[in-house]
Amino acid sequence: MEKKAIVVGAGLVGSLWAVLLAKRGYTVDVYEMRDDPRKAGFLGGRSINLAMSTRGWKALEKAGIKEKIREVAIPMRGRLMHDEAGELSFQPYGKEGQAIYSVSRGGLNIELIRIAGQYKKLQFHFSKKCLGVDLRAGTAHFEDTHTGERISAEASLIFGADGAFSAVRRSLMKLPRFNYSQQYLEYGYKELHLPALPDGSHAIDKNALHIWPRGQFMMIALPNVDGSFTGTLFLPFDGPANSFEQLQTDEQVEAFFRENFPDSIPLIPGLLDDFRTNPTSALATIRCLPWCYEDKVLLIGDASHAIVPFYGQGMNSGFEDCSILDELMETHRDNWPKIIEIFNQDRPKDTNAIADLALRNFVEMRDQVADPRFLLRKEIEAYLNEKYPEDFLPLYSQVTFSHIPYSQALAEGFAQDRLFDRILAIEGIEKNWRVNPEVDEVFRQWMREREGMG
Amino acid sequence: MEKKAIVVGAGLVGSLWAVLLAKRGYTVDVYEMRDDPRKAGFLGGRSINLAMSTRGWKALEKAGIKEKIREVAIPMRGRLMHDEAGELSFQPYGKEGQAIYSVSRGGLNIELIRIAGQYKKLQFHFSKKCLGVDLRAGTAHFEDTHTGERISAEASLIFGADGAFSAVRRSLMKLPRFNYSQQYLEYGYKELHLPALPDGSHAIDKNALHIWPRGQFMMIALPNVDGSFTGTLFLPFDGPANSFEQLQTDEQVEAFFRENFPDSIPLIPGLLDDFRTNPTSALATIRCLPWCYEDKVLLIGDASHAIVPFYGQGMNSGFEDCSILDELMETHRDNWPKIIEIFNQDRPKDTNAIADLALRNFVEMRDQVADPRFLLRKEIEAYLNEKYPEDFLPLYSQVTFSHIPYSQALAEGFAQDRLFDRILAIEGIEKNWRVNPEVDEVFRQWMREREGMG
Repeated sequence: MEKKAIVVGAGLVGSLWAVLLAKRGYTVDVYEMRDDPRKAGFLGGRSINLAMSTRGWKALEKAGIKEKIREVAIPMRGRLMHDEAGELSFQPYGKEGQAIYSVSRGGLNIELIRIAGQYKKLQFHFSKKCLGVDLRAGTAHFEDTHTGERISAEASLIFGADGAFSAVRRSLMKLPRFNYSQQYLEYGYKELHLPALPDGSHAIDKNALHIWPRGQFMMIALPNVDGSFTGTLFLPFDGPANSFEQLQTDEQVEAFFRENFPDSIPLIPGLLDDFRTNPTSALATIRCLPWCYEDKVLLIGDASHAIVPFYGQGMNSGFEDCSILDELMETHRDNWPKIIEIFNQDRPKDTNAIADLALRNFVEMRDQVADPRFLLRKEIEAYLNEKYPEDFLPLYSQVTFSHIPYSQALAEGFAQDRLFDRILAIEGIEKNWRVNPEVDEVFRQWMREREGMG
Repeated sequence: MEKKAIVVGAGLVGSLWAVLLAKRGYTVDVYEMRDDPRKAGFLGGRSINLAMSTRGWKALEKAGIKEKIREVAIPMRGRLMHDEAGELSFQPYGKEGQAIYSVSRGGLNIELIRIAGQYKKLQFHFSKKCLGVDLRAGTAHFEDTHTGERISAEASLIFGADGAFSAVRRSLMKLPRFNYSQQYLEYGYKELHLPALPDGSHAIDKNALHIWPRGQFMMIALPNVDGSFTGTLFLPFDGPANSFEQLQTDEQVEAFFRENFPDSIPLIPGLLDDFRTNPTSALATIRCLPWCYEDKVLLIGDASHAIVPFYGQGMNSGFEDCSILDELMETHRDNWPKIIEIFNQDRPKDTNAIADLALRNFVEMRDQVADPRFLLRKEIEAYLNEKYPEDFLPLYSQVTFSHIPYSQALAEGFAQDRLFDRILAIEGIEKNWRVNPEVDEVFRQWMREREGMG
């Protein structure tokens, strides 16, 4: 069999996947709608920084650029919450030494394209907008975004890594019995720039993900290597109060920030300009099934499972697609009918789970992190994890610091909710839990019940 | 305000809705892709008979053709189950005198078009395929299916009643933040013809909906006025056994029927021809939101909420859309911004509920109706309904024989499940429930708990 593939999309997932295919000896042609970011500079469609965690690192390691990216990634060891009075509270993400990493989307994408460009049999075709795929023939059609010229390309394998608005998926949608769902949040987001101090250093703690949780809305900020932070305001589009609809004038924006995020105002000198200039973007969850057409066409990344950003797992889950496929290539050699069958069968339950977890984490970030009971639960989780490392790994750690399938983590999360319903119901728990033997008793009872069920 | 409306689609919901608009003095233009069924004969896109129940009758009454349709409708008082040995068991749908009615889709549609045609200000335009709607301008575009001629029509109100594959909805889908979902069952269906006896009478009991429940699949049959029945086989598309995939040859079809539906074989003399000739069709649930564009465009019926057929509520829920809108017109006069806002706000929760109920009823029909415990529950439901008519109305009756909002019925259904978990757990319940005071005790306890919660 000719080892030849087309990858539609040279975003994070597409360019990483092209590298992994090239490493296994495939001739790869990658078609990307945007101009070459190595020349044009990066013009992303989405937020400018990302939180890389364990699943993402694994795929970068496979691609051979883990160390290089690690050098410019900024570890964030936990959440740093800012209350209305500017008071801070910290909640670690994992154990000592564990962190998620703030990474520049543009920088990472360019690095992936550079590494891919080193493979002789891998070729990029930029400024080529995909018009669709002729599934049966295995032909993809493109239009040059500058000249309007139309070209077609053929391969026995076509990968759609062309994101949430995938043109390849649009072709699959014409198949009978194609399942599809796009669900938007009532919330939009707007990016805001928090510049570096004059000496180039970070104005606030750079080793944390900053959150201003306000119940029904929130702002967050992630560190960049140049000393700046990228802030993102998440707010309902519409509504009589605290909505983008209500923030039309400079005065309204200023009053809203003074009331809700006073300590951020000195950090965002260009607030009013940013607010006027930057778009208010929407947030969607996209699911579909099947992800494939026979053994010819396969969707990966956002093209088949776009999720909301609140668990920091969008890129990580897309990269995990690549790792899993790479391992299936290892196991089944180039038996693509088998590889695609297994992937289409096994993977969607996990991406559905992370889609659900991401929606659920929005409530956690904007609301629960400001709740002392929630922070208490996190402390007790850390305690149980330390004392019973074999038996208890908090949900957040399963998702972020492990390769446990997302669907298994989600199921475990529900079980852990039941455990903490009981632990947090112990009288006086907030005062004395470190010395209260009941915590361990409830935990061991929960363990016994689970073993009984298993 | 000019009282002018366009209705896209002259199916059941479109033509009924056109009648109700015309009755309130609107000038109505109805555009339909198919040819005029009054001349061409009816060529339906879906199954040829329907189960009319309370919600549907109400809308027909508003349109003034309830009596006329009632005369040719066949009451089905319950389910008549056929087991593998051809043994029958009957389970009534409701109380004495209650029934759902088998109605011919084609006959009903033609009757609605006839009644609509009597309104001077209502005009039908057949053989006009909708190409889309320019939402802002309020213009709908059509192509004549015979001449290819393109025409446009304008109105301040455009209703999309153009079914599950709605072209009007396709135009709404281009709006930002449009929520959409299409989910297919793994099951297909195929219609089969059970002819009348030589004397024109029905070969099996005509006053029942016949079910051959076989766990993972089933066949059903509904009576027609000409003495025939329309049978429908519901079977997985794919799979190693009992799937359409496995029924490729005449021999396979015959063997499958001999094994699973032996008593039906003499009833379907054209089985092998029907099986080869009739299509195997898919079953989808379609949901979207919003259903409207501003106060200009509104989707109704299958265009906004297509459901699987297992509760017999597809047409009934579409007709209920019309009744509700008619009542909103009554209350809010011609204040369409208000009418559309309320309808788009309140109605989707009910159509989502009937979508869920319809999916759930498939399991009931193909599997549970063959279970003695299920039939026992139905008997006890009837007993409780008779003894406590104010306090207990079975879920099926709420959906079928009442105007209780579907979402309320669904919630009530979950509560009733909890009640029957307890009743059916009573020891020896199957033997002595008619004289066992525990049934009433459990019921009254359940009522008390619900009142406490209320």
